[in-house]
Amino acid sequence: MAESDAERGFERFITFLDAIVAIAITLLVLPLVELTADVDEYDSVNALLRENRSELWAFLLSFLVVSRFWFAQHDSARHVVRWDRHAASILMLWAVTIVFLPFPTALMAEAEDNATTKILYIGTLIATMLFLAVFEGYLRAHPELTDADPEHDLDPVVGVVNVLMLLIALAITLAIPATSYFPILLLLAAGPIANAWRRLRGGGPRRTPVGE
Amino acid sequence: MAESDAERGFERFITFLDAIVAIAITLLVLPLVELTADVDEYDSVNALLRENRSELWAFLLSFLVVSRFWFAQHDSARHVVRWDRHAASILMLWAVTIVFLPFPTALMAEAEDNATTKILYIGTLIATMLFLAVFEGYLRAHPELTDADPEHDLDPVVGVVNVLMLLIALAITLAIPATSYFPILLLLAAGPIANAWRRLRGGGPRRTPVGE
Amino acid sequence: MAESDAERGFERFITFLDAIVAIAITLLVLPLVELTADVDEYDSVNALLRENRSELWAFLLSFLVVSRFWFAQHDSARHVVRWDRHAASILMLWAVTIVFLPFPTALMAEAEDNATTKILYIGTLIATMLFLAVFEGYLRAHPELTDADPEHDLDPVVGVVNVLMLLIALAITLAIPATSYFPILLLLAAGPIANAWRRLRGGGPRRTPVGE
Amino acid sequence: MAESDAERGFERFITFLDAIVAIAITLLVLPLVELTADVDEYDSVNALLRENRSELWAFLLSFLVVSRFWFAQHDSARHVVRWDRHAASILMLWAVTIVFLPFPTALMAEAEDNATTKILYIGTLIATMLFLAVFEGYLRAHPELTDADPEHDLDPVVGVVNVLMLLIALAITLAIPATSYFPILLLLAAGPIANAWRRLRGGGPRRTPVGE
Repeated sequence: MAESDAERGFERFITFLDAIVAIAITLLVLPLVELTADVDEYDSVNALLRENRSELWAFLLSFLVVSRFWFAQHDSARHVVRWDRHAASILMLWAVTIVFLPFPTALMAEAEDNATTKILYIGTLIATMLFLAVFEGYLRAHPELTDADPEHDLDPVVGVVNVLMLLIALAITLAIPATSYFPILLLLAAGPIANAWRRLRGGGPRRTPVGE
Repeated sequence: MAESDAERGFERFITFLDAIVAIAITLLVLPLVELTADVDEYDSVNALLRENRSELWAFLLSFLVVSRFWFAQHDSARHVVRWDRHAASILMLWAVTIVFLPFPTALMAEAEDNATTKILYIGTLIATMLFLAVFEGYLRAHPELTDADPEHDLDPVVGVVNVLMLLIALAITLAIPATSYFPILLLLAAGPIANAWRRLRGGGPRRTPVGE
Repeated sequence: MAESDAERGFERFITFLDAIVAIAITLLVLPLVELTADVDEYDSVNALLRENRSELWAFLLSFLVVSRFWFAQHDSARHVVRWDRHAASILMLWAVTIVFLPFPTALMAEAEDNATTKILYIGTLIATMLFLAVFEGYLRAHPELTDADPEHDLDPVVGVVNVLMLLIALAITLAIPATSYFPILLLLAAGPIANAWRRLRGGGPRRTPVGE
Repeated sequence: MAESDAERGFERFITFLDAIVAIAITLLVLPLVELTADVDEYDSVNALLRENRSELWAFLLSFLVVSRFWFAQHDSARHVVRWDRHAASILMLWAVTIVFLPFPTALMAEAEDNATTKILYIGTLIATMLFLAVFEGYLRAHPELTDADPEHDLDPVVGVVNVLMLLIALAITLAIPATSYFPILLLLAAGPIANAWRRLRGGGPRRTPVGE
């Protein structure tokens, strides 16, 4: 019963985290909503949309990124059968970066070409990835907390490749500002690259029923 | 156990989506709340209410629309017993349109007679409907993911009729601007029309315990 | 299985409604947060707090009211074992009034002595109560949807008394503006009055494990 | 069945409270998001970040504090097997303080050196702690509501030490304004101090699988 108690406790915690992510992802629309208050300052609604393309793009990019982060966390957390305060603390640090993301997102919409903005935005994404990687590492080091097969379910390659992609994206956007935030889409290549790497080492792709 | 694992995973995902919809529907009130800050600019509270009728109407219309979308999604998702990343991706695209909706809603309140606003608002609704139709189509093509009876539970007629109604509504409001956003209420006729169509073809009405 | 399916469907709907209420109750703090942006316009933080007492009072009153509404809805909904689209529609109408409440709350903070504001605020509360009463009436008329003992669990007296108290509160505050929104606290007397009435008729108090 | 009914009712209530906490913790980012609207008033993004360090610090501190409060509440509530309206009312009072916290947080960001701000912010934290302590006291006085071992699970020492730490923090920051809000970090010492105290009295540390 203590076992199932701990499991329910963790489920309640994960539901709490999910609610936080759901709110953060929905708050991303607020800067767009606030735009509409100034509609009279524009020649037309078309002009408003055209001159605020970067707000729309920032919204879509952050929505994509946060939903990928949610799936990645889901993939890791579903193997947890017990938890302890360290696992909880690592996931709360992960949550700080998710809750914080609407700030660099809004900054990106206002001052997109600024190097500090780019470092803050991509740096936040890297922090999210790193905390999740630390969480998976903690699970690998404490097999009593999971029912995962570490080799297949918690392989660190995916996390490493994701962070590498973001570091490369940051280098590209700082070196060639005209690329704007497009290099972040390198993230989409992280899954295939990680699987290719694993195959090279003789393993199959990481088992991921939904996320990557 | 893998089965029930996948089922719980999907339930967690659906709870996550529900939270997103709940937040998006509640954020619809924010433009109204912000109105109150300018109460001193109006002759009276009555004047504030009168001059911002379009904000109140936009709030009610979008609340109605999002709650119908939630019931429609509930109707489709309750048949899912397994999931895969494609099903998840389609539902996340559906969620983008829900999270985005407060933006055209606020725009509608500020510049309701504008053709671009109308296209953006109704276009977002059509996108929501289309992604749900794609999701149902995906379930029909992958019967191993559902316990649905495709004939009765995932019949595409409802989705098709909903999209048709919205396209007609868009045509009417663009052709006769004085109709404002009232043509959207054609959506209320979509359920009865779909059932009539099904009966013509010799089937019963689509089984829907709650939504339509 | 159809049975348990319907039950789970209703549970998912109730969780969705709970999320909406949780968000609406938390959004009540936003007008307070926005106050802080103007702190420089005040002589001191003390002055800001003093001159915005009505904002603080509006926050507390609406928090109290919404939490009572949640308990009242919880009391009714826990007897539901099946649902249909009418029950769902009535509860969605109930939810509109909850989501709308932050608007009259913010209006009350800005223009508290205005008769229109008072009618809008208390009128919204009455609407919430009425929709819940209609929901309970619908359950009484459809005993197949509940496992309730209508006599003890769905007695209409509580709803009637609550609406009466709010109508009296509205009359008092309109007749004697100096009473401000304090008459709404008559709601706190609704539970005891309803129980006294029931005892007069020879029944025991309504069974309510938590709400009233 | 009545038993399990009461248990499910409490679980629904706790999920409702968790959603409130999740929203309140996520709203903490809004003052940061609003900063970005004024980015043109600063020399650069770097200047914006530098001149609003107190906003960033307020965000992180309140995130830390609210997440600790959540874990503390989780620790108390997981022992509840039944509930009554008093237990529910105490937890709703706890929730008021959580929902209110974004207001003193935003005030702290705008007027951090003000004594009233400090009293309001730390006073809110003390109120949160006190309501949780009252809740635990209520559970100790009503053993029929819990499956807890009062000696190990609901020992009042932790609550007392937490409140003491906050009172000391308030005294320090008022006496030595230069310490700003750093004394609040004394909270981090509350767990170890409580355990040391318990050991002095011959007991083991309080059993807390995750929170402290």
